[in-house]
Amino acid sequence: MFETALTKELGIEYPIIQGGMMWISKKELVSAVSNAGALGILSALTFDTPDALAEEIEQTKKMTNRPFGVNLTFLPTLKPVDYGAYVDVIVESGVRIVETAGRNPEKYMDKLKGAGIKVIHKCTSIRHAKKAQAIGCDYVSIDGFECAGHPGEDDVTSLILVPRAVDELDIPVIASGGFGDGRGLVAALSLGAQAVNMGTRFMMTEEAPIHPKVKEVLLGAKETDTILIERSLKNTMRVWRNELSERIAEMEKSGATLEELAPLLSGRRSFEYIMRGEPEKALVACGEVIGLIDSVPTVKEVVNSIIKQAKGVIENNYALVGSK
Amino acid sequence: MFETALTKELGIEYPIIQGGMMWISKKELVSAVSNAGALGILSALTFDTPDALAEEIEQTKKMTNRPFGVNLTFLPTLKPVDYGAYVDVIVESGVRIVETAGRNPEKYMDKLKGAGIKVIHKCTSIRHAKKAQAIGCDYVSIDGFECAGHPGEDDVTSLILVPRAVDELDIPVIASGGFGDGRGLVAALSLGAQAVNMGTRFMMTEEAPIHPKVKEVLLGAKETDTILIERSLKNTMRVWRNELSERIAEMEKSGATLEELAPLLSGRRSFEYIMRGEPEKALVACGEVIGLIDSVPTVKEVVNSIIKQAKGVIENNYALVGSK
Repeated sequence: MFETALTKELGIEYPIIQGGMMWISKKELVSAVSNAGALGILSALTFDTPDALAEEIEQTKKMTNRPFGVNLTFLPTLKPVDYGAYVDVIVESGVRIVETAGRNPEKYMDKLKGAGIKVIHKCTSIRHAKKAQAIGCDYVSIDGFECAGHPGEDDVTSLILVPRAVDELDIPVIASGGFGDGRGLVAALSLGAQAVNMGTRFMMTEEAPIHPKVKEVLLGAKETDTILIERSLKNTMRVWRNELSERIAEMEKSGATLEELAPLLSGRRSFEYIMRGEPEKALVACGEVIGLIDSVPTVKEVVNSIIKQAKGVIENNYALVGSK
Repeated sequence: MFETALTKELGIEYPIIQGGMMWISKKELVSAVSNAGALGILSALTFDTPDALAEEIEQTKKMTNRPFGVNLTFLPTLKPVDYGAYVDVIVESGVRIVETAGRNPEKYMDKLKGAGIKVIHKCTSIRHAKKAQAIGCDYVSIDGFECAGHPGEDDVTSLILVPRAVDELDIPVIASGGFGDGRGLVAALSLGAQAVNMGTRFMMTEEAPIHPKVKEVLLGAKETDTILIERSLKNTMRVWRNELSERIAEMEKSGATLEELAPLLSGRRSFEYIMRGEPEKALVACGEVIGLIDSVPTVKEVVNSIIKQAKGVIENNYALVGSK
């Protein structure tokens, strides 16, 4: 059921991929997702050193014998990151699925493809999607405006971006941004995607390694409770709307400089507050789909309920054309 | 085929509604849409007087014997509009479907419902959708961030807003904003909508009464070629990106006042340029779905191709769950 060319090639049961989330996509969540028949993805840069990533991969392998991937995000960072060393660790670990994001992975493609790794490139525009295909990526995961984290600067929504990518590309497309239930999965498949990528929905599970208080406040969030920050830095990020994110947005409107904004934008500081259960002091990446989320179940329950709901939706749709 | 409770109640063949578009939703387009099995909707305020609307309704009746509706948009206007007189004309004309937009139609509900009219209220937030249901509207047509014209100020996309509305309301939901092909129709139905509303797609047809040159330039537009203006006035509008709309957006960023902006925002002036074939001097309402539109067919061709494509999509989806 729900077997697509993608599920076969990646060796997963369902066309559902867990988005690589900084600080969150660790072994507990990733192994649970893969064990549930979807694809878990570790976030490489969550680990301070390539060795720490290698160790996390080994631990994850002990927790699942199903495929999982590693996300590698190329973003401007304060401290330079030795991406080559992370790539080496991934290649040597035997992981066979890598999700890249931020800048394109051209520099590392030979090494990744040489190791038989399937590369999913995550991007937010058709231009970047075409580039990803041109350099040999196997899949494009395209992120609409509604997504958590970085939607890019074009503000095109998944409803448009997914079929546009499908029309422009020869490689399969993964729909990302705005997906969280079975209705969304069928919508994504209908738009031509071969799978959905979900971050926020998997963040709101028992296994996601963040403080329960964070999940609790997000449970009360509506679809209007996200906000875009860092637009003035051309590094737009969708986060949970709280006093901190509203203050940052206001400062940006008033022309604040990077120097003025930087102290508020530290990801590591936010992460510490998130782990400590003080979400009001943190920037919490969060997609508009949060408005559709009203429970914190186990990962397995999430995956099973999506598949069950999607099946029902497809059968209902079929009834509309089955007659006459 | 594609019979929903909505299609039965409104007496139409397909769950496709043509959005009421100022200056464009006139008898030529509306009758063509209704004749094609979808629901055409006249735009009341396109006609300077209630009498002119009455005349247009009569003309439209001569061009189709299928149901069509009338859109009545309550917006702040420079000249006060005698909405009551327009409502009277609609009620007396025998038209049995009204689409309201802007402020809610509470003041006219008794009269409309008393005449057996089905009222579709178009809105952009769950709060307004619930209010529409509470005052007795029969349907809510909910407009996502990607839509042409007025997406509201919340920036929630159709992918989220449609299922949210379905979950919150007892009355049926029409999905609006971002829909233009058969893939989108199936996505909308999957999200729980009973129909789609399309504006931009019907504007890009042979029958739409605007200058061919406007259609020609829009044919070249990509999904990134729309822009939001009037955000500073809390009257956000998505239009085609050209020098004029970019200039307005820039002026707004620099804090321009309503007085400074007003001369550039005249809808009537834009309309005149649109009719004259000078789109670069006009503000042309245009949704992100323009990026998916690459032809200017007849209305009948649009409707038939959507239905054909949707059927194929549904059958493909069904194959995913049919086995096992």
